[in-house]
Amino acid sequence: MSVYDERRKKLYNWMVNERIAMVMFEDTDGRRESAIRWMTGQPSDALLFLSAEGKSLLVPWDANMAAIYAQADVIIPYGEFERRSIKALQGAAALFKIPQGSRVEIPPVTSYTNFLKYLEDAGEYDILCRNNGTHEETESLRAVKDDDEIGIYRKAAAITNEIIDLLESDITADKLRTEMEVAFFIEAECRKRGCEGTGFETLAAGAGRSFAIHAFPAYTTEPFAGPGLSILDFGIKYRGYTTDVTLSFAKGPLSQAQEKMLSLTEKAYAKALSMIKDGVYARELSLAADAVFGKARKAMPHALGHGIGLEAHEAPYLRSRQDNTWQIRTGMIFTLEPGLYDPLHGGCRLENDILLTDSGPEILTNARIIRF
Amino acid sequence: MSVYDERRKKLYNWMVNERIAMVMFEDTDGRRESAIRWMTGQPSDALLFLSAEGKSLLVPWDANMAAIYAQADVIIPYGEFERRSIKALQGAAALFKIPQGSRVEIPPVTSYTNFLKYLEDAGEYDILCRNNGTHEETESLRAVKDDDEIGIYRKAAAITNEIIDLLESDITADKLRTEMEVAFFIEAECRKRGCEGTGFETLAAGAGRSFAIHAFPAYTTEPFAGPGLSILDFGIKYRGYTTDVTLSFAKGPLSQAQEKMLSLTEKAYAKALSMIKDGVYARELSLAADAVFGKARKAMPHALGHGIGLEAHEAPYLRSRQDNTWQIRTGMIFTLEPGLYDPLHGGCRLENDILLTDSGPEILTNARIIRF
Repeated sequence: MSVYDERRKKLYNWMVNERIAMVMFEDTDGRRESAIRWMTGQPSDALLFLSAEGKSLLVPWDANMAAIYAQADVIIPYGEFERRSIKALQGAAALFKIPQGSRVEIPPVTSYTNFLKYLEDAGEYDILCRNNGTHEETESLRAVKDDDEIGIYRKAAAITNEIIDLLESDITADKLRTEMEVAFFIEAECRKRGCEGTGFETLAAGAGRSFAIHAFPAYTTEPFAGPGLSILDFGIKYRGYTTDVTLSFAKGPLSQAQEKMLSLTEKAYAKALSMIKDGVYARELSLAADAVFGKARKAMPHALGHGIGLEAHEAPYLRSRQDNTWQIRTGMIFTLEPGLYDPLHGGCRLENDILLTDSGPEILTNARIIRF
Repeated sequence: MSVYDERRKKLYNWMVNERIAMVMFEDTDGRRESAIRWMTGQPSDALLFLSAEGKSLLVPWDANMAAIYAQADVIIPYGEFERRSIKALQGAAALFKIPQGSRVEIPPVTSYTNFLKYLEDAGEYDILCRNNGTHEETESLRAVKDDDEIGIYRKAAAITNEIIDLLESDITADKLRTEMEVAFFIEAECRKRGCEGTGFETLAAGAGRSFAIHAFPAYTTEPFAGPGLSILDFGIKYRGYTTDVTLSFAKGPLSQAQEKMLSLTEKAYAKALSMIKDGVYARELSLAADAVFGKARKAMPHALGHGIGLEAHEAPYLRSRQDNTWQIRTGMIFTLEPGLYDPLHGGCRLENDILLTDSGPEILTNARIIRF
């Protein structure tokens, strides 16, 4: 049984218990859903239908690509359904012989306007569009990595750490001088090591631009790591899974304000790390980091962290919002990334990827604040 | 009056006619909406509220960035609304003194589940979530470029064409040898010329991988432009606006099947180009290209083209689906990109950016099939 079979099987059981006859997943431009890659191997652009009887139908845009990458019981190109998801849903229901009146679940991100169309065109089924349904169950399942995924992450982290060490030596030795040189170096080094590429656009913000959480543009031809604080946020994508780390380069002499920002960031990071254990609420970690900054009358303008996997941001979410009910569980892989940003003094952030194991948190990556 | 004021003004008039008191736009991770950049200059991650009285409120995630890039009547950071869009909507309604019972429009992509929350939490307003509303009106306005945008596109096309010429000479002279070298060359050359970067991940597919519409991974360390058919699809982003072109490299000796694919692609391209005029239905262009391929018992597995602008894919859409009602209008800028893909013979695509002017179509970019 392949890992894809095993992952789908977890959902079949859940569907039977919830009396869902069929579920649809949708991965398209503007509405990415990596659950399809997770359950079939197809990298992008497809629909996936699962029946509670334990059958799967993949509907890829690109049949040539599916022939190489995808594993499902049946594969039918999207073109055969007039490139319309409702037609594909009807085709899947016919293939699986879904009885009229059965509960058929569509993605909770389905727009209100599209939902009305499903009701109109597939009204013979009880169309469900809801939170807390099969898609959220999938998100929860994906948040806890299986052995195959943890193996991939150990390799991805090893590549990331090799690149971090090269970056430290080449940047502090002035061999990599511009934001663009740094970004290209990462892209080339990860691809040479068999990665699909970077996991997202590398953010390389020299001292003049590090005040922004997400520098815009992501990198330029300007110098990187001159005097002051510079931020380098990147991830590499290995077999679909992305790491996500942030290095800060602090080239002296630094102002007192800059020294304070660095030490507060390290303190918030250490505080959150010390609290990680099975069952802890992610919100508690985020509030604890906020409190470190708050005591110094500073505020972090973003969340403390997030899960990583086939997407650069996925469950669990480590944010302070009151509606955040995620708990950290053994097997989860997520970032801790406290940071501070100031229009005058620049910004800093420290971000690593953490796996919670049976024996406590394992810091997979070696990102750090580099003072030189 | 800035271009942003002028663009917003077009919507205020429309809102008054439609009796919309306030409209919300949302640009977030996973739900990108370039209309906010179009109307304020803020590059990403923000909410925008417009009132029919002609006032605008921008709610950016990153206040430091907004201070540099954004122009709006009022700017309030998202953090002040607990990072919740419903709170921001309520704050905007209070700021603009929107009377209870007024029509307030939210994005048509709002999920059914979120729509229910708006009804619950902001029920004092008549919340609209619909197609054919303010957001679609904005999409239509954006599809016809204004003078500022056409000026940007002439510059972006000139940069693209310089890079195309360099690519042709360096690739055919064997100076750029791998997919990665080609991709990095484009990224570096466009940034040197003041671009924000490429407009999307460059697809460089050597002869062994060109059978896929979108090669996966997008580029590798393998050779590019060896014997057979290779595809190079890229765009450069200048002041927010992306070009989108595809070159095919055909290195001989070619099989008869490959020669036929190339000539059919050029024929379909010429056919569609010859039909472009103000008022023509985009679907007619796409069907005409399909017919060229159909006569030879081939089929193009994707649409003929799409508008370009602040997004790499935007209105108008040149596709054959029956529900495509877009008409080509003077001032629109869009791609023509016919192609054919075969698991044995590889693939080819020819894509250029077209501006419809008063005196007919102007081919802004110089992409071509390069036989060598």
